[in-house]
Parts: sequence; structure tokens; C-alpha cells
Amino acid sequence: MREVAITGLGQTPVGEHWDTSLRALAADAARAALDDAGLATVDALYVGNTYGAAFSSQSQIGALAADYAGLHGVEAFAVEAGEASGGAALRAGYLAVASGAVESVMVLGVEKSSDTVGTAHIAARNVSLDADYEAIHGATLPALAALLMRRYMHEYRVVLAAFEPFSINAHANGKLNPGAMYRNLLKPGAFGKAPVVADPVNLFDSAPDGDGAAAVILTSAAQAADLVPHPVRITGSAGASDTLALHDRRNLLDLNAVRLSTNRALAEAGITREAVDLFEAHDAFTILTVLALEAAGFAEAGRGWVLAQDGGIGLTGSLPLSTFGGLKARGNPIGATGVYQAVEAALQLRGEAGPNQVPDARIALIQSIGGLGSSVFSHVLQGKC
Amino acid sequence: MREVAITGLGQTPVGEHWDTSLRALAADAARAALDDAGLATVDALYVGNTYGAAFSSQSQIGALAADYAGLHGVEAFAVEAGEASGGAALRAGYLAVASGAVESVMVLGVEKSSDTVGTAHIAARNVSLDADYEAIHGATLPALAALLMRRYMHEYRVVLAAFEPFSINAHANGKLNPGAMYRNLLKPGAFGKAPVVADPVNLFDSAPDGDGAAAVILTSAAQAADLVPHPVRITGSAGASDTLALHDRRNLLDLNAVRLSTNRALAEAGITREAVDLFEAHDAFTILTVLALEAAGFAEAGRGWVLAQDGGIGLTGSLPLSTFGGLKARGNPIGATGVYQAVEAALQLRGEAGPNQVPDARIALIQSIGGLGSSVFSHVLQGKC
Repeated sequence: MREVAITGLGQTPVGEHWDTSLRALAADAARAALDDAGLATVDALYVGNTYGAAFSSQSQIGALAADYAGLHGVEAFAVEAGEASGGAALRAGYLAVASGAVESVMVLGVEKSSDTVGTAHIAARNVSLDADYEAIHGATLPALAALLMRRYMHEYRVVLAAFEPFSINAHANGKLNPGAMYRNLLKPGAFGKAPVVADPVNLFDSAPDGDGAAAVILTSAAQAADLVPHPVRITGSAGASDTLALHDRRNLLDLNAVRLSTNRALAEAGITREAVDLFEAHDAFTILTVLALEAAGFAEAGRGWVLAQDGGIGLTGSLPLSTFGGLKARGNPIGATGVYQAVEAALQLRGEAGPNQVPDARIALIQSIGGLGSSVFSHVLQGKC
Repeated sequence: MREVAITGLGQTPVGEHWDTSLRALAADAARAALDDAGLATVDALYVGNTYGAAFSSQSQIGALAADYAGLHGVEAFAVEAGEASGGAALRAGYLAVASGAVESVMVLGVEKSSDTVGTAHIAARNVSLDADYEAIHGATLPALAALLMRRYMHEYRVVLAAFEPFSINAHANGKLNPGAMYRNLLKPGAFGKAPVVADPVNLFDSAPDGDGAAAVILTSAAQAADLVPHPVRITGSAGASDTLALHDRRNLLDLNAVRLSTNRALAEAGITREAVDLFEAHDAFTILTVLALEAAGFAEAGRGWVLAQDGGIGLTGSLPLSTFGGLKARGNPIGATGVYQAVEAALQLRGEAGPNQVPDARIALIQSIGGLGSSVFSHVLQGKC
């Protein structure tokens, strides 16, 4: 199996891009990644997209993006794993290059969330839930996240304020990122007074859907060394799944697919979790981050929230989280989000993260979560040692 | 790169399955494939599905199918490339096993077309066209196929009756297949009198959307030799893309992605097209089969229809096509169709095709086409030599 590296990367700002289209966003990120790698084309294009059919009445986005990015004739398909589609596309690209059958792959994530607005947006968004047992009854992702959060607070006697530092950290990092959707700071105490979305999940607790596209180009590590000054190796890659419906899980507060995929990725990379210098977590809701930190082994059950106290998750903390603002402040262009994580982690490991730089970042863990832990893809990225 | 083999296969009948669900169909095919391979589980599940969100309000079908098939915790994602989603999922599975990172993969295709009916079905079906330049103007896949067919008839002075033998052949083979959606013979002459769908495309010219699921289990060829008596090797695997919008193509009648993917797959397999014993073509419309035969190099431009004269595409012909009825008579469970092709070709190469058996079948070419040639995946399968 060949070692795989990120040889180029590109991204668009995240936001409500009313003046552009799904295909134009895809082409922008793709061209930026080609420029970064110094390549004219690639052999294959795998696209992470979650809601193209539902939001934009558009599927077959692999071939469409290939055409608009100027990658004429290349192999192309889209990968879908709910909100983890970006991470799943990265996995597909990793396997293709690792196999030796494909020399260079572009993994492109794209979502045009603003193509459908209002209640139609909410209805479209629900297709990644269990259609027969959750969505049909009116459940939404924030409503189900609220059930998990309430259960967590009850089970472990945790107060709402314990979740606040995650959002404050995300916005502090987003403020430094010119491509972030939200660049405002959250004042201490504001979290507890924010309008409620689905009690106890509030507005400052939920990541905003946004428009955006991000791309990474993967080649063999050997080829990357010839092409670019700072290749970033993907040393661990793993996926895992769990039930879609929350009621089918043995323990609501145990994200088993996070545990499985994290353990597999760390084992493949041959590292312990203590070696991880930064963690791009899927912080769609603070409760999801807390549960992921616990299932990934960074904290005991019921103690994930403690990591965020006293600056522990800041850029200079013991486990920096959401270093460019995460889903919460960079914004959540859903199917693209997992690829944004790869771009951001690669910038950190190249030492090109600017004001968002984590000092001496050498090993990053990135994690893309579909639904509330139904599809999870985890990757370990490593820069120069 | 490891050699990859099909080690197990399963399928449900194709039809309008009003009494069952997307997830139940998926589970049925998955369990049949596990039984066939003699395996209890696999390491990963890649699902070909095209219209889950649009027809069934369900995405994240990878994790959902894993759960209902009893493949708890496995890596899972869905692959989408329009109507070529099944072929694209097979490609993803092939790359995963070839890489050595995954020991066993189930490639599952599933579609529940009857979850949305009538005009809503037609609207949902249009998401695989170019949303901004085709679907928005009211174009449909049959209407665009009709433009290609009319152009072909004009350009090469071919009459409608020249297309009839493709449908007659598909129904003759479908009649022998107990899992086919249509098991009636087409009487000679009926084709020309069939109700028109989009002139000149008629009812007997168009494949019916159906419900169904099919699955193949892929392992290394070395492992397959230990597990089953008749493993089938995948010796060529390739994808290619073209513009979604027909108006962006240089030559409407030249399916460039068919040419590219066929040539790549044959080259990888190290065979010439003369060595192909049967071709599972994507016969959604007879014009698509004719154009695919020409682009794949089985006939000169304008002469693809000649291959079907005098029984040349029958089970004992020089190039057997649609050996279990193809999309036209077996039925077209859209995102599953590419996986049905793999199951059917594997049955042929095992010598287990029953009354549909092609004598001495050793090499099969299967081809999955999205839109009217926008996404194409071609695979070469080989049995014992």
C-alpha cells in the first residue's frame, strides 16, 4: 500500500453566497487546489456533497464539477455519508491513491445550502435522519441533539454553562480566519441567554449551514515530495457506522462509530492520542463535540466538557479544537465540511495557518460526523517530524 | 496492487415492490451475498444509490443499510454518479480492496423507485440532468434521449425499425430470468407501433424504473480462491466523465466517456474487445446502447445498430447483450443497476446463469452510464480461463 499525501489545497470563504452557484463554488476551490499543487489536472475527482439533490435539485455533481473545473474526461463520482460526506470522500480518495490504480485524486467538498431556504430547507435537511422512524415524526437534527444534550446534563449533572467555552473558542478562532462565516467574538455569559433552538440547544450552540467548497489533491507521498515543499501525509484513515435512529442505540451517550473510527485511524498511524497536536472536531452542536471527545478517548465519559475549561482547547492549549472556527464559526457547508477540515489541518501542519497557527503542530486528527454519529470518518494527518 | 475478485453475490427480483422498503430490499440483497460468500460480515459497505433523497427522503443509506444488513459498525458510505451510481460504487469497492487497506467490501446497489410516483417521480428523476441548463427548461432524460435518437437517424439515415432488435433481445432474455420486471416477449413489428414517450423514443424503447437491490462482495483474489469454488476476478476497472448538458458536447453522437472508460478498462485487463464474450450494456434507451457500442469500439460510427441484426446480440450471438434482460426487461432499479450487471456477469462467468447462460463465457464487460453519458464506469470481469 502506497503512502498518501496532501499535495495541494484550496477553499472558498464560507457564507451565504447568494451571487454564485454550486458549480462555480466547486470550480473555484478546485482551481485553487490545482494551483497550490502546481498541477494542470488530476486523474480522478471524488466529491463530498450531502444535499445537492435536496437543496440544489442537482445530483451527478462529480461529472458536473469535473466539467466546470476543467478536469475534462476524468473519472468522477460523489460520495455521501450524511454530514460526514466530506470525510467519506477523503476516505475514497485515500484508498484510490493508496491502491496505486490512480496517481492523483482531487477530493472536493461542496454545498450550496442557500439554494433552498426557510421551511423547505429544514425539510430537505431531514433526509439524513432515519426517514421512517425519525423524520416522519417531525424530528430534526437540532431536536435530536437537544435530546442527547438534556440526557447528558441529567446523567452527569452538568450545567448549561459547561458547554459555553466550546462556542467561545470557535468564535475566537473564527475571528482570526478571513474565510469564516462568523467573525464575531462571543461574550462570556451570552451563551446562556441566547435564543433557544430546541431546548437546551440554543443559537450559540448550533453551527450555521453555509455555502462553500474546499479541495485537496492527493498523490503518493513519493510524488508529493517532488511537487511541493511541505507535503502532509495521511497516516491514518478509517470509517465506521452506527444506527441512524437514536432509539436503536444501546447507550445514547456513547458514540460508538466515533470510538471505532478514531481507534482504527490512530492504530494505522501508529500513534497514541496524546501525540495529537490539534483536533478538528465536528462541532455541529457542542454536545456532539463533548460526546466525540469522550468516545475518541480524550476524556472519560461525562468529563468531555472539562477539557474546554481554562483555555485547554485554545490554539495554545493542550488539545486545540476547531482551529479555524470549526463548524460553529467557520460555518458548516455540510458536505464540504470534512474537506475544509483537511485543508485547515494541512495548513496547520505546513505552518501556514497565520494567526490561527497552533505552535509546533505536527499531528492532526480530523473527524467528520454524519447525523448524530451514524457515519464517522477519522483521519490522521502528519507534517514534517 | 492486489488483484480483486467477486466472492459473493445476491439480488432481489426487480419490480414495483409496494409491500417493502428501501432498507428491507438492501438487507435482503446483502444477506444473500453474505450467504453466497460464506461470510458473516465484511469490513466496509459502499452503496450505489441515485435517488434516495429525491424518491425516498433518505440519504446516509450507507450507514442505514449497514445497520439493517447486520453489518454493525462497519465503514459505510454511498456513491452517486447519476444512473451510473452502481458502477461507481463497484469502482470504489475495487479500489478499496486493491489498496490492501480493506480486506472485504460489500458493494450494494439499491433503489426504491416506487417511493415517489407520477409527476413527482418525473421531477425527482430530473436531478441527474444539468439543473441550470436542462431540467430548469423542462427537459427530461427520455426527451434528451429522443434528441440524440432523432439526430442519429438523420445523420446516418437509419430507420426506427433498426432499433427494434435491441428491445426484442432484452425481452427474450428477460423472459428466461425469474427476477426480471418484464417477462413478456415483444412481437416483431410491435416496436414501431408502441405508444410514443418522446418522439421517436417509444414505450418499448425505454427501460422501466423499478425497485430492487443487488450486492457483490469483493475480496482479494487470493482470499477468494480459499472461500468459493468459482471466484470471478475484476481485471479492469475505470471511470470517465463528460459534460452533463448535451449542448456542451462537441459531437452529440460521440459518447466520449464511454470511449475513455472502456479503453482504460480493457487496457488494464490486457485484452482486446474481440475477447469480450458478453457485454452488459446500459440500455436505458436503445439509442444509448447503439451509441455505447460505437464509442466502446464494437462498431464504426453509425453502424452500432447493425450488430443487433440476425441475432448477433443474442445469448449465442457474437456479442451477447443484456443477457438477463438488461435495463429494458430485467428493469432499471437505477442506482442498483450497475451492481445487477456485476451480479449477472458473475453468474455468467461462474456458469450459473441457467437458461440465460452464454456458452463458454469467460470475459464480460459491464458498463454503467449516468445521464446520457456524463458519468461512465466500465469493468472487465473474468472467470476461469
